[in-house]
Amino acid sequence: MCAQGLKRAGVNVRIIDKRPKKVAAGQADGVQPRTIEVLQSYGLAERLLREGNQMHMVAFYNPSPNGGIERTGRTADITAPSARYPFEVTLHQGAIEAIFLDSMRELGLEVDRPIIPTALELSHDENELRDPQSYPVKVTLKHLDFGSEGQDDTEIVYAKFVVGADGAHSWVRKTLGIIMDGEQTDYIWGVVDLIPSTNFPDIRNRCAIHSSNGSCMIIPREGDKVRLYIQLSDKDVVVDKATGRVDKEKTKVGPEELLEVARKSFSPFTIEKAGEIDWWTIYLIGQRVAQKFSVHERVFIAGDACHTHSPKAGQGMNASMNDTHNLIWKMTYVLRGWADISLLRTYEFERRKYAQDLIAFDKKFSALFSGKPRTEECQDGVSHEAFLEAFQTFGAFSCGIGIHYSPSSIPSMPNITELKHQSLTSHQTVGMRILPHVFVRAADARPFEIQDLLPANTKWKLVVFVGDIGPGKIKQIERVAKLADDLGKSTGLLKRYEDGVFEILTICATVKECLNYTDLPEVLRPHWSRVLLDDVDMFGRTGGKGYDIYGVDPSQGAIIVVRPDGYVGTVTPLEGVKDLETYFDTFLIRTL
Amino acid sequence: MCAQGLKRAGVNVRIIDKRPKKVAAGQADGVQPRTIEVLQSYGLAERLLREGNQMHMVAFYNPSPNGGIERTGRTADITAPSARYPFEVTLHQGAIEAIFLDSMRELGLEVDRPIIPTALELSHDENELRDPQSYPVKVTLKHLDFGSEGQDDTEIVYAKFVVGADGAHSWVRKTLGIIMDGEQTDYIWGVVDLIPSTNFPDIRNRCAIHSSNGSCMIIPREGDKVRLYIQLSDKDVVVDKATGRVDKEKTKVGPEELLEVARKSFSPFTIEKAGEIDWWTIYLIGQRVAQKFSVHERVFIAGDACHTHSPKAGQGMNASMNDTHNLIWKMTYVLRGWADISLLRTYEFERRKYAQDLIAFDKKFSALFSGKPRTEECQDGVSHEAFLEAFQTFGAFSCGIGIHYSPSSIPSMPNITELKHQSLTSHQTVGMRILPHVFVRAADARPFEIQDLLPANTKWKLVVFVGDIGPGKIKQIERVAKLADDLGKSTGLLKRYEDGVFEILTICATVKECLNYTDLPEVLRPHWSRVLLDDVDMFGRTGGKGYDIYGVDPSQGAIIVVRPDGYVGTVTPLEGVKDLETYFDTFLIRTL
Repeated sequence: MCAQGLKRAGVNVRIIDKRPKKVAAGQADGVQPRTIEVLQSYGLAERLLREGNQMHMVAFYNPSPNGGIERTGRTADITAPSARYPFEVTLHQGAIEAIFLDSMRELGLEVDRPIIPTALELSHDENELRDPQSYPVKVTLKHLDFGSEGQDDTEIVYAKFVVGADGAHSWVRKTLGIIMDGEQTDYIWGVVDLIPSTNFPDIRNRCAIHSSNGSCMIIPREGDKVRLYIQLSDKDVVVDKATGRVDKEKTKVGPEELLEVARKSFSPFTIEKAGEIDWWTIYLIGQRVAQKFSVHERVFIAGDACHTHSPKAGQGMNASMNDTHNLIWKMTYVLRGWADISLLRTYEFERRKYAQDLIAFDKKFSALFSGKPRTEECQDGVSHEAFLEAFQTFGAFSCGIGIHYSPSSIPSMPNITELKHQSLTSHQTVGMRILPHVFVRAADARPFEIQDLLPANTKWKLVVFVGDIGPGKIKQIERVAKLADDLGKSTGLLKRYEDGVFEILTICATVKECLNYTDLPEVLRPHWSRVLLDDVDMFGRTGGKGYDIYGVDPSQGAIIVVRPDGYVGTVTPLEGVKDLETYFDTFLIRTL
Repeated sequence: MCAQGLKRAGVNVRIIDKRPKKVAAGQADGVQPRTIEVLQSYGLAERLLREGNQMHMVAFYNPSPNGGIERTGRTADITAPSARYPFEVTLHQGAIEAIFLDSMRELGLEVDRPIIPTALELSHDENELRDPQSYPVKVTLKHLDFGSEGQDDTEIVYAKFVVGADGAHSWVRKTLGIIMDGEQTDYIWGVVDLIPSTNFPDIRNRCAIHSSNGSCMIIPREGDKVRLYIQLSDKDVVVDKATGRVDKEKTKVGPEELLEVARKSFSPFTIEKAGEIDWWTIYLIGQRVAQKFSVHERVFIAGDACHTHSPKAGQGMNASMNDTHNLIWKMTYVLRGWADISLLRTYEFERRKYAQDLIAFDKKFSALFSGKPRTEECQDGVSHEAFLEAFQTFGAFSCGIGIHYSPSSIPSMPNITELKHQSLTSHQTVGMRILPHVFVRAADARPFEIQDLLPANTKWKLVVFVGDIGPGKIKQIERVAKLADDLGKSTGLLKRYEDGVFEILTICATVKECLNYTDLPEVLRPHWSRVLLDDVDMFGRTGGKGYDIYGVDPSQGAIIVVRPDGYVGTVTPLEGVKDLETYFDTFLIRTL
């Protein structure tokens, strides 16, 4: 994720991996709605959607009064109504990696493997650390496939920046001496990937099964595959006290035993494997967040290296991809000399708070999921209603849509979330991702999802809701003309930073029959394709009510400033060009 | 189109072209809604949609009382409300050819070029002509790139079938001595592809401009390109009497002159070229249909080789692709020995009637388009209202959605359009393409466009609308059980022909909360993915009311039989398995 994003932005990247080949099966597999939006912004979602399975519905099973389990309800898998993709995609990690590897290959970047880092040294020179053009990180690499014929397997790399995306047992994190806060839980789970032969009617839905014989989660996968998460008791498993990991050698539980445990939860339904078991594992859930996400903003950690939690809500890969999605544009701006290096401090600020929220969520959800179900005999157990309520309450968060970056007043860090004019967009929260919505292009009435016009191309987007400028709306037309003047000033917003920082998208609250794109001032239509209308398409199948969706008053308008990663940085009125200059001056480097 | 479809079906194909390379610019460029559906059924639409421009809106300009032109209206470019893709795609022919060439290459087929046929001989032996495994066509080919070094440039090919898709001046048609009925018109048009610099507000919409200085049509293209169709007077052009084609040598009109004519129509708006002119041509409209589309059903002609008409309604490439789309599955069935060779007679029957309808439509439309506009001085001219009415009346036809194959009683030809139970699907006409609609998959609540589940994979699809079989619907559940018994019989429909003729898709009029896919009899769910529900998706964004769309009564149900090319062959009640056996026995070869 990080390498493809940086490479796409033109950064010179080296990516190394200790594995000799990419992951083939198993591992992470759930892609959440917000992550799909993010992948789409890099042009990577199409293939994911083509190859992956989709989970739209979740079914809940609980103990039946007649013994065994019965269905207590079905509901939407996703509870965030604004999700552009209202489902989760499941696909094995190997296929997801392949999407990244192929896209990097097109950009001219391959993973160097098998290679491990053996030493990492950071300069102590303050000036060097603050100069984005310096190479303050010395990394020693060992080529694992060298050396048998006396080759020197050591390589020294001097880097401007290093990102350690090296997992829960991160070497980079340990080398930097960064501490993980949090603890191991008592929850032990087994995971099995298989093609089932079953009479269970919800085998293609995500299922939460609470039985008197233990809990089980079903995750349908690509093709006919299904993943089962199976709750184990600590009697089944031997834990290595030193590492805190399951000792697979000493533990007598294998895939067949896991399936046997699952069968007890499934009763009275039957489940058998059709063919071989693809992949399996057993693990303890740890819930931890790193104390720091970087050292001097020159070496970063991301993903499982900075946060671990249960896989039950499918967060791991998603939180990880979104970590570096947050970092890519910031690092690019600093490397280009467009932004001050202090911008990089916002990475830890934004993503560590998110990781802490994630663990808090995970603690509640895991406890509910791993707890005993409520039955006649067990009145203290988790009821269907309590679980469903938690499932839906946490839904917006777990699907990634709820990610919400906060303003900060830390003096050494620019504040890139400015709430001053939040009231102008009452339904578009500053700090959250730009809401998806379909608008119609003024020049040709073609409907477009606005997120597709705001790709992760490292640009800041000024989305100018000009309001209703139809025939007779003299006052609003005058305000828009004034805005165009303000934007066009020779030392103004569009001229005072490096070329290529901004893209303009103009949205009119005027129906397509009454507006010509040529009616807009030229600065608001740098190309005929940049003017949209808040209107339905020619057959009324899509679009319309966009001003309502964002909570913008058509008689006022607003400028929504969208960060390169798709999150809203600030909002101003049409008269707010000065505010925008103040906002960007805090972190962009002026050229005028 | 023909080669990729046959190759995809496993047929051994050779494709030759006299051009040394594929078309680079210009030529045909408009893809109609039904053609997009067809391309999607071969998996080819995604790239077309990614690369092409979309025309959603059409604008009409007529003489203004103040001189020059003014806009008299804007409306939807497509008037068929059931179009799955409610727009036309424009993309230059080279890019469209590339989609086919790349898809063929993946299948292991390349175009052999530059090669021309020099002789074509058809056997006179009746038995040989009737035996699909014989090679009754001898074709002599000349390799145009051979011979300079004394190579033998001649090659003899013995073919089971030959398709001449060799254009309006078809060598195959002339060699077979097939006559074209119809005539040349007086309408002369020039065509220019350019990137415009203009203040014309509808430059990205399809436009019909009727000015006192002549007519002009605008077709926006991929990127910033635009195609102009410009009406010329016969004074501007020299026609070669022998060929009926414009003599480009003697005609003094070039692209600059065409643009100058266009400028007069555009006034008071201005239009200039930005950059070079990509492609241009001048042509006379001929409106002709071949008397026969094949000789002995062993040599066929398709596309412009059998019908020519004006390009104004964007029909040429579309009618052509749909000709061979009609032929591909029929030829495949005959070659596999699955169907009697008489099935091939339905090609001319169905496509020639369509071509005749197309010319009739084209005559009316061309006359309106080429006619003088109605003004103060010219009260006999074409009014905006008359043109708009014609535009919308012909809309369903011109977008290809209106294609309607008829039953026939020609004794030597099987009737593949059976209307007996038409009343069971009051809105799905037998002989027309299966209506697009979104249903929700029973097993996982994922919405699917039904057309995507009925691909052009040479299978016949039995789309079984089982009605409402929810809790308590005992009578309908019993009827469905009876249907399953009828279908499962050992010498019944599913067993009496070659394996692989049929695919079953089951559609229940039951909501997703109340139905398990496992409730269906096994013959109606050969895989968990084959059961759909007439319901909305989990967020109510799409789907629902499918039984209404097709006009099927949920308390009755119906079986809709969809041909491999997506057209409905017949409809029966759930008790109609016998009718289906009778229907298929007329052209499929029985194995039991």
